[in-house]
Amino acid sequence: MAKIRTLAPPKHTVTRSLAAVAGGREVPDAVLSNAQVLDVNARQVHAERELWVTAGRIARICRSGTATSAFGKGGPSVYDCQGALLAPGLCDPHMHVESSKVTVHNYAETALLNGTTTVFADSHEIANVLGIEGIRMMIADGMAAPLNFYATVPSTVPATAPETETAGADLTPEVIGLLMDEFPEVILALGEAMNYPAILAGDARQHGILAEALKRGLAISGHVYGRENVPPYAASGVGDTHEAIDGEIAADLVRAGMWVFLRSGPPGSAWDSLPEAIKAITQHGLSDRLFCLCTDDRSPNHLLSFGMDYAVFEAVSEGLDPLAAWTMGSLHPALRYGVEEELGSLGLSRQADIVLLDIQAGEFQARSRKDLSRASFRPVAVWLAGEQVVEEGQPTERLKRRLDRCRADVKTYYPSAAFQTVNIPEATPPLLPPMPKAGRYRVNVLRILPPGILTGHEALELEIEEGQPFEELLRHHDLTAIASLERHHKTGRVGHGVVKGFGIKEGAIASSIAHDAHNLLVIGDNEADMKRATEEVRRQQGGICVFSRGQLLAQVVLPVAGLMCTQSVAETAARMDTIAGAMRSLGCSISFMEFSLLALAVIPELRVTDRGLISTTQAPKIIPLFEPAS
Amino acid sequence: MAKIRTLAPPKHTVTRSLAAVAGGREVPDAVLSNAQVLDVNARQVHAERELWVTAGRIARICRSGTATSAFGKGGPSVYDCQGALLAPGLCDPHMHVESSKVTVHNYAETALLNGTTTVFADSHEIANVLGIEGIRMMIADGMAAPLNFYATVPSTVPATAPETETAGADLTPEVIGLLMDEFPEVILALGEAMNYPAILAGDARQHGILAEALKRGLAISGHVYGRENVPPYAASGVGDTHEAIDGEIAADLVRAGMWVFLRSGPPGSAWDSLPEAIKAITQHGLSDRLFCLCTDDRSPNHLLSFGMDYAVFEAVSEGLDPLAAWTMGSLHPALRYGVEEELGSLGLSRQADIVLLDIQAGEFQARSRKDLSRASFRPVAVWLAGEQVVEEGQPTERLKRRLDRCRADVKTYYPSAAFQTVNIPEATPPLLPPMPKAGRYRVNVLRILPPGILTGHEALELEIEEGQPFEELLRHHDLTAIASLERHHKTGRVGHGVVKGFGIKEGAIASSIAHDAHNLLVIGDNEADMKRATEEVRRQQGGICVFSRGQLLAQVVLPVAGLMCTQSVAETAARMDTIAGAMRSLGCSISFMEFSLLALAVIPELRVTDRGLISTTQAPKIIPLFEPAS
Repeated sequence: MAKIRTLAPPKHTVTRSLAAVAGGREVPDAVLSNAQVLDVNARQVHAERELWVTAGRIARICRSGTATSAFGKGGPSVYDCQGALLAPGLCDPHMHVESSKVTVHNYAETALLNGTTTVFADSHEIANVLGIEGIRMMIADGMAAPLNFYATVPSTVPATAPETETAGADLTPEVIGLLMDEFPEVILALGEAMNYPAILAGDARQHGILAEALKRGLAISGHVYGRENVPPYAASGVGDTHEAIDGEIAADLVRAGMWVFLRSGPPGSAWDSLPEAIKAITQHGLSDRLFCLCTDDRSPNHLLSFGMDYAVFEAVSEGLDPLAAWTMGSLHPALRYGVEEELGSLGLSRQADIVLLDIQAGEFQARSRKDLSRASFRPVAVWLAGEQVVEEGQPTERLKRRLDRCRADVKTYYPSAAFQTVNIPEATPPLLPPMPKAGRYRVNVLRILPPGILTGHEALELEIEEGQPFEELLRHHDLTAIASLERHHKTGRVGHGVVKGFGIKEGAIASSIAHDAHNLLVIGDNEADMKRATEEVRRQQGGICVFSRGQLLAQVVLPVAGLMCTQSVAETAARMDTIAGAMRSLGCSISFMEFSLLALAVIPELRVTDRGLISTTQAPKIIPLFEPAS
Repeated sequence: MAKIRTLAPPKHTVTRSLAAVAGGREVPDAVLSNAQVLDVNARQVHAERELWVTAGRIARICRSGTATSAFGKGGPSVYDCQGALLAPGLCDPHMHVESSKVTVHNYAETALLNGTTTVFADSHEIANVLGIEGIRMMIADGMAAPLNFYATVPSTVPATAPETETAGADLTPEVIGLLMDEFPEVILALGEAMNYPAILAGDARQHGILAEALKRGLAISGHVYGRENVPPYAASGVGDTHEAIDGEIAADLVRAGMWVFLRSGPPGSAWDSLPEAIKAITQHGLSDRLFCLCTDDRSPNHLLSFGMDYAVFEAVSEGLDPLAAWTMGSLHPALRYGVEEELGSLGLSRQADIVLLDIQAGEFQARSRKDLSRASFRPVAVWLAGEQVVEEGQPTERLKRRLDRCRADVKTYYPSAAFQTVNIPEATPPLLPPMPKAGRYRVNVLRILPPGILTGHEALELEIEEGQPFEELLRHHDLTAIASLERHHKTGRVGHGVVKGFGIKEGAIASSIAHDAHNLLVIGDNEADMKRATEEVRRQQGGICVFSRGQLLAQVVLPVAGLMCTQSVAETAARMDTIAGAMRSLGCSISFMEFSLLALAVIPELRVTDRGLISTTQAPKIIPLFEPAS
């Protein structure tokens, strides 16, 4: 069991009150009556119940009407659930707030609307920009936000090594240990150990980082591909992954003793790996004990529609028993981090994080999945630590006031340094690579493979003539230029590459979001638009912009670490929609999020960083753009 | 996840070795080949596997024969499992070593023969005699013993209060907190919070003790009777109980979010509550997630036959799927204490605690329970942290040497103070109560209710004549005298009672074991035998003896805190058999263990302590033996 911060008063301070209320000696603060109760501990649904709340915690669940008979007129306020279903709040075991491009308190609002009352957030993105200070900012924001916010410490900053990319920080084992000791009740794990090739190879730094977690009894979250890599990865002490892409590797992981977080997302997107991986349960017959649901990354325009509630719906659609699916979204994440005596179920003494669903118990119990629509899993009402935050699917006035206070205080979480992070020289460095002298060359090309997480590495043999412009080469071979500009230390360093299949025509996109080092990534088919886009992002000190033929088509300003804005999710989503529209209009084959991964040198097969082209099929290494043909 | 001591090297020191072995780059220390594997994580049995061990941990599980092909002649030593089943070592989540009347290292030998590789021990008995020093002794013994030994801190010393009984120590919240901080990697919970009436009533001391655990994120183990008591008990933060006596209360407990430890024991004994409580799963349809198996107390003569392996067998006999039953005996206890990343399964990186069963996978998978005999669950071989400790059902030479070392060192675990704990005056105080003056009285009689855990409180109306001897009263009404002599502080205090239905004729039994205060408890139908038995126990400074007509019929000397001896389980069992035989020959209706509970003032309805007769139907209170009849 981990000792954790809770929004409700610490349990040890209120056990006498809870006992008095549960024993009927004192009046509860509130009663949710006339309800069905989804009991993820017993895996049953109980009919005609009521739930008593005191001190932000669950004191008792009993036959509906008990409080009214027991206390009469002097009794507690009673909320009539009208026969609908009370379920435990959902817990997202692996997610990155920064991917939604909003601050934690703005994220919280949408999470609550989705029934997500707890997140285990890996602040990996801001850590790559602002290091330990950035993580402290996210924790300050998270602790003020109306949400159970827990953190995992990023394990791979930089994602690879200073030789292959330049990040804004270097989280050594020592720094990671310090941070764990600084927030023992908030930091519950080491985050996403994604440099799995280094772990498999016995790399001293990566194993030193794992040791910091193990020494403290903290969980280690992971990220691994390849069935053959499962044994050495699991043997290294890593305890989960959200990257299982099919039923076979998911089964291997669980059989090795690891948790599998089934990642849900917009259907058909690269994030939507749940439908394949869930086959470990539905086809291979594994127990669901080591399975959770998660979101990982969610763009702001998908956040409301594809939250944890959607993940439950998707799991049910794929054939899972609805009780099992909700359990994997609520209790199991709490179990994974050892906090099940505080969160994740409607067990007594737990924090009162509750979702009301307009769904009849019979629908769950009869497992009549076809009757369960997406709407069945949309929260009608939500309580966080006993306070109602959602009613009729909308934020309550109390929640709005709380969010307004957070928004007013934003500068206390994110000081001015967080707003000045795009450090590239005033004179923009060349965005196209120098052409080699005339001759026959093998060009290493980054091939886009929709939906876009994996990329291919293709070799293109061609003849280069003396004085041939680079843009002509792009046109002749239907390629796009890509460049990564180091933005943390103002070195002016640029890495170059060429991309096949990105599809952009007469335009460019620049972004200060570019996983994981978040250097300034720019792609385009002409240098002029690339330069304008780059300069605009620098001027705004963060953001994304799309230029075409000299015109700004769309823009999102992201001034917090160059990753997030201070607006609400709805406002941010609207801005991101304009980016998506502009990208579509220019013919881009993948969406912004996948574009921003083209710099992530831990996913096969080829990436581009400020150090250049990185081959990632083995341990990441720099390869030249042009090689003399053999 | 709790950071715990392990017999294997700490995981953070060996992840590189484990990765190298699992990845096939280095040779494992040992391979258990040609086996089936019982995978409690996936809830599946895998055929034709082999298990690689390195640094006392599980590095890899793969197709049988892999190591031989990979490493050839320079390969590891290979143990041929001949197609039998490898299962994770069993973990006993709630037990008291002292009940077996042996030291921890002697207990360990029998535990290993039963496939139990881990115990979570509540040293409640020695704590009642020697306080915090006694717990330290048990931990010193446990850490030296060949066993994964973890402790829970006794929460109720004294079991009730100084007004109702005199214990050898007073474990205040402060002392309990100190002890938790002294052994953070061994103490994983607060032990058996058995004064549930005080917890329900909001007693400040008991809630203060709960708070010490909750403040540190430690689990709280419990003990509760009565379905109506479940909500306030669970709301107080208590997380488990092993006292569920039927399917209804077991279901209530799980629905309140508590663990239920199904207690197994000799069939028909008071300890054998599993067959009823398991109906929560088999009849009420609850998930088994919050169920474990446990032994609680086990007399030395039952220890070998009724270990955790028997508990698994009994669960299967009661209709449970064998895979579920073994999971409840191995993984679930580890989950309950948050140590599942170290113990309880054959997941990679876990300590290599392994049991070999001569059982075919098909028998598990087909759930053909009728084919599974008691013998199916008897371990053929056992490995503890990768070292083989049992072969062909017998201790290995390595284990014998290790136990010999422990036995030679016994005085380093238990210093001389532990051997001088029966402090009663040289002149034995009167063992029969003073007779009241002539008149009509209501006598409060303790009624034995076989099998013996619960007792009844009966009122007997009778006429007392002037000068009538007490022994005559006993004879006339077929009663037995019982007395509890305070033995910790040499106060000479004696509490008296009379018992109906104990059945002893012309004899007496005295014992320095008398739960929980462990004062000297003596019962008999004549004062002379009672006095001789008492004096013998005092002379030996601990033990049990049975006298009849002036003759010593049977004796066990228990010099360690008056609770345990330094002999092996087999020797102790043989001595205890002589006690059982002598008790039977004198007509006793209950066994020694139930006799020793007649002083336990937390079980309904009537008990006797050094303070007198204690009514336990409500909060414990003293009542007179004789009351004027109304």
